[in-house]
Amino acid sequence: MENESLTIEGRNAVLEAFRAGKTIDKIFVLDGCQDGPIRTIVREAKKGDTILSFVAKERLDQMSETGKHQGVVAYAAAYGYAQVEDILNAARKKNEPPFVILLDEIEDPHNLGAIIRTANQAGAHGIIIPKRRAVGLTATAAKASAGAINYTPVAKVTNLVKTMEQLKEEGLWFVCADMDGGVMYGQNLKGPIGLVIGSEGDGVSRLVKEKCDFVTKIPMFGDVDSLNASVAAGVLAYEVVRQRRFAGKL
Amino acid sequence: MENESLTIEGRNAVLEAFRAGKTIDKIFVLDGCQDGPIRTIVREAKKGDTILSFVAKERLDQMSETGKHQGVVAYAAAYGYAQVEDILNAARKKNEPPFVILLDEIEDPHNLGAIIRTANQAGAHGIIIPKRRAVGLTATAAKASAGAINYTPVAKVTNLVKTMEQLKEEGLWFVCADMDGGVMYGQNLKGPIGLVIGSEGDGVSRLVKEKCDFVTKIPMFGDVDSLNASVAAGVLAYEVVRQRRFAGKL
Repeated sequence: MENESLTIEGRNAVLEAFRAGKTIDKIFVLDGCQDGPIRTIVREAKKGDTILSFVAKERLDQMSETGKHQGVVAYAAAYGYAQVEDILNAARKKNEPPFVILLDEIEDPHNLGAIIRTANQAGAHGIIIPKRRAVGLTATAAKASAGAINYTPVAKVTNLVKTMEQLKEEGLWFVCADMDGGVMYGQNLKGPIGLVIGSEGDGVSRLVKEKCDFVTKIPMFGDVDSLNASVAAGVLAYEVVRQRRFAGKL
Repeated sequence: MENESLTIEGRNAVLEAFRAGKTIDKIFVLDGCQDGPIRTIVREAKKGDTILSFVAKERLDQMSETGKHQGVVAYAAAYGYAQVEDILNAARKKNEPPFVILLDEIEDPHNLGAIIRTANQAGAHGIIIPKRRAVGLTATAAKASAGAINYTPVAKVTNLVKTMEQLKEEGLWFVCADMDGGVMYGQNLKGPIGLVIGSEGDGVSRLVKEKCDFVTKIPMFGDVDSLNASVAAGVLAYEVVRQRRFAGKL
């Protein structure tokens, strides 16, 4: 696991981190704050060996990266990145064919967070992001994931194309979304799959697209170019859900 | 049409506004800037009676609301809100059963913009938002819509429930998303439909939900509460697309 220190802000995010069993090193709580969620946080902090401090609003404002701390800022030991192997193991443990989402140079932390949240809800086993030219697990991404970052493994790899080659040996098929593909509703998205989502500006890069087994298309009837990257990821992930879990059953 | 003045920032957004036939009152261009898109903008401005000024970077930075003006800031006469009737007319003109998206107190302009973009691409005829406790067509929402705001009508109404009653007389059915509904893939989302998306924090409000003809569910297999509002809107809108345009055809 590669570690990065992480600020967790807001009551729900901090409670979710405790619930998920994260190690919290330090917690700063607004002095005088006594409501239910804050008292639960203080109780949880005292259970473990978290260092607990009561501070003034100015101090919290200063520590806050998102500007929305809601009276509590925590420092987790790490939001560790997972290994690709952890994602495959998660699928094995559930006895399901792997369903992985690969993000090709997503730059906006809100999009990354929303996609982690979607991956969690759609039953994907994990997310793979590249080390370069892409946003990582920042505080903003963590907040946008609404806690899903605690459950859905995110692996960071040096070379997305090489990782795809290795995963092909594990039996995965890769599909990317682009306008020259077949309409997604008529394609086979069952089985062990890696869904590749392109960057906000440029879509899927050439080398990654060449490694894909097929190209799929979200049908569009509008006047603009594309969908927001996290919306496109959601629409595609749920087409996988429909085909895997519901096709022919409703 | 109810008017609100609007700042349009960035080359694509300004070009898109010209292309869509918007009235642009004033344009401020970075002095000395001579590339292709800027020259097209200057040419378009001179065609009409737009007031054109060349200014220093500091001036543009000051005018910019998003901080990303790319050397051009325009003031449109108005991003006019449409009337609900305009949305129904758009459906009649295309000879399609109406497909309307209603947003129950969406507060984040990025979500509003992403949903306008999705509505445009999914072939929805328009969006209805409430006057109170909801974000309007701000510069941030316009930018997040990636130009779709120029094509997809957005109506603002005083009372969402009353508007739903009126639209029911026009033959529309209303569906909202909530966890106590039936799985969307097995429900009938064809025909004239109003899709209701709840707010980021609280979902669909009680009175609006009571007016809905049925409740639908995006199936979720994860550990967190819900999806991002614009992702949920995208997943639902594309289930409407699948049923309307592709079911039994692929």
